[in-house]
This record gives sequence, C-alpha cells and structure tokens, in this order.
Amino acid sequence: MYKTFQLKTEAHDQMIDITSEVQSWISEQGVEDGIVIVSSMHTTAGLTVNENADPDVKTDMLRRFREMYPWEDSKDEHAEGNTAAHMKTSTVGHAQNILISDGQLVLGTWQGLYFCEFDGPRNRKFVARIV
Amino acid sequence: MYKTFQLKTEAHDQMIDITSEVQSWISEQGVEDGIVIVSSMHTTAGLTVNENADPDVKTDMLRRFREMYPWEDSKDEHAEGNTAAHMKTSTVGHAQNILISDGQLVLGTWQGLYFCEFDGPRNRKFVARIV
Amino acid sequence: MYKTFQLKTEAHDQMIDITSEVQSWISEQGVEDGIVIVSSMHTTAGLTVNENADPDVKTDMLRRFREMYPWEDSKDEHAEGNTAAHMKTSTVGHAQNILISDGQLVLGTWQGLYFCEFDGPRNRKFVARIV
Repeated sequence: MYKTFQLKTEAHDQMIDITSEVQSWISEQGVEDGIVIVSSMHTTAGLTVNENADPDVKTDMLRRFREMYPWEDSKDEHAEGNTAAHMKTSTVGHAQNILISDGQLVLGTWQGLYFCEFDGPRNRKFVARIV
Repeated sequence: MYKTFQLKTEAHDQMIDITSEVQSWISEQGVEDGIVIVSSMHTTAGLTVNENADPDVKTDMLRRFREMYPWEDSKDEHAEGNTAAHMKTSTVGHAQNILISDGQLVLGTWQGLYFCEFDGPRNRKFVARIV
Repeated sequence: MYKTFQLKTEAHDQMIDITSEVQSWISEQGVEDGIVIVSSMHTTAGLTVNENADPDVKTDMLRRFREMYPWEDSKDEHAEGNTAAHMKTSTVGHAQNILISDGQLVLGTWQGLYFCEFDGPRNRKFVARIV
C-alpha cells in the first residue's frame, strides 16, 4: 500500500491541505487500523500538521517563516539562492506520520496535513505508505 | 494497540515528560519489538524528544522559543492571537516515533519524550499506536 | 530488523550523510517494502533529510542555525552551556522515517539523510528499525 501523489503549487510559499486526498486513498485501500507515513520528495518543500480552520494561520505561518529565514542573505554560499527554503523544510520536516483508526486518520478537530511549498511554484510529488 | 491519553497542562508554555506513561502502556501490552508513534491531537501543542536530566534545559528551550516566536506580533492576522503557538508546534512536530526493543523504548541516557504545551493551560490529548 | 550504528563526528556542527550506510543495511536485510525509522540516541544531535548535491547547502544551514540559536546567551540557565544544541535538535527532530520500495529508500533526486551534530566533536550513536 504505497502511492505517489502529484501536485502543482501556485505560489512561492504555500501550504496546501492534502488531508482529504490522503484520507480518500486510505479509504480506497480498506485499511482499518495502522499508520500512514507521508513524505515529500523534495528538499525545498516539506510537510506539517497544523490548523485547518482559519486560513489566516497559514498566512501568518508563511510570513513568520519568511521573517525567520530571509530569502536574501549575503552570507549564503549556495549558488541556487534558496537556502531559506532548505531551512524551512528541515524545520517542519520532510515527512509526517498519522495514525489510522476505524479507517480514519486520527486527527484533532483542527488538525490538517499540509504540503508546504517553500520554493514554488513547481510541480511536486509526495509519497505515502500505510503500515 | 492504540490508546488515547489525557493530560492537564498547568502553564502557558510547558514541557511535560510523558516517557514513563508511554513506557508503562507498552509494558502492559507485552510488546517486545516495534515502534510507537505518539501524536498530539492539537495544533498549539506538539511533541519532542529532548533532555530529561537538567530541568533548566526545558526552561531555556521554552524561553528561546518565546523569543523566536513572539506572542504579540502586529502583523499576525489570525484573530485568535496564538500564531506563535502554531509556529512552535510545526517546529517541534505534532508527533514523534520511538523504537521499541526488548520491551523498552529505545532512548539514549538523556532522552525523554515531552508533550509541549504552547498555549495553555488546557486539557489536552495525545494518542499512541504500536506497530 | 534493528541495528545500532556508531559514528565519530569531527566538528562542533556537522551534517553527515548516512544515506548509503542505512541503504546498505536495508539491502543486507533483503527487505523489499516498508519503512525505516532512524533515530539519534542524543539530545544535542538530530537527524534531517535535506539536499545531498551542493555541499554549500550544509554550510549555509549550519551557519543559519548558529545565527538563530546563538551558542552564548546570557539568559540560558543550563549549566552545561549547550542549550543552543538542544534547540537545534528539537527543530530538526531526533528521528526521521523513510519509505522503502523495491528494496530502495524512497528519496527524491536531491534528498539525503543526515546525522546532524550540534555539539561535537563526539562519538555518537543512532539506531534504525525496519517495519
């Protein structure tokens, strides 16, 4: 039970809710209990679990991440110029685990799983495996 | 092998050692080898593995997190005013994995598993599954 | 399928690519599909997945982490003086999961698994389990 998902991001920084897409796949597999590991295939885009209600949380988080990790930094040596995106990816993590119980992702009322684009827009991939 | 744990936090920011509670449950299950995934059910409280010896480490970490993510930020748009707690949760992570070997959590001498409250005090929940 | 790995770090801050070492062990086990959980046994050294191509990314990341978490901080109470290393470890995480498919770690073209030393040089250990 392994799947590659594709998505197209539309901004330089973006948090895209992928909860329902992952849940749909789990439901199709008929899995009742276990865990799902979801992993970005990139080093400038990660995954996080955070609030799925007020979209201002995403706006604030992306802005605060930009302030913490300025895109322009004269001390950066990486020629591609996207060190900030690498920092953000390691901060949120490249992968997340979510428990599955009774066929459903075990998430709190306000929790959603987000694909975090930090150097877009681009075509991106993430993978998932149920254990 | 799945359990929901409840706890009551007592401060706005707090790191609560839940290692022995999780270990006790694993021992009750009679599991010898595997992994346990422990997950916060909240978006303003996460989990981390860090030092279990000198309590000053927790004090310093919570203070440094407050400095990095100021609670008051005039640019925040989220009306609930707790964007800083969302940032901290995505930074430490909503969930952690720990290996199990010979019935014991595989942790280094100084490692403990902490529930990290970032917007308390509140009644909180976390879940765990052994795979 | 559980193994303890040893390594000797050579600098105060260092990111060491352990991808091929972990892949070799998985290949020896003959595992085709699953996940591997890799975990640092320390609270001042973590693990992250990030770029494996341009070594300047590591240089930039370690420098930016030093700027974000200054080693000297007069407000720190932890007598050992390495609170910055504890912060970095909780930021990147003590453990990472990687999917396995067709006997190979499922990583993007530019992804590598790094052991992150934040208070070296030291003799260090990490553990891995395949599920």
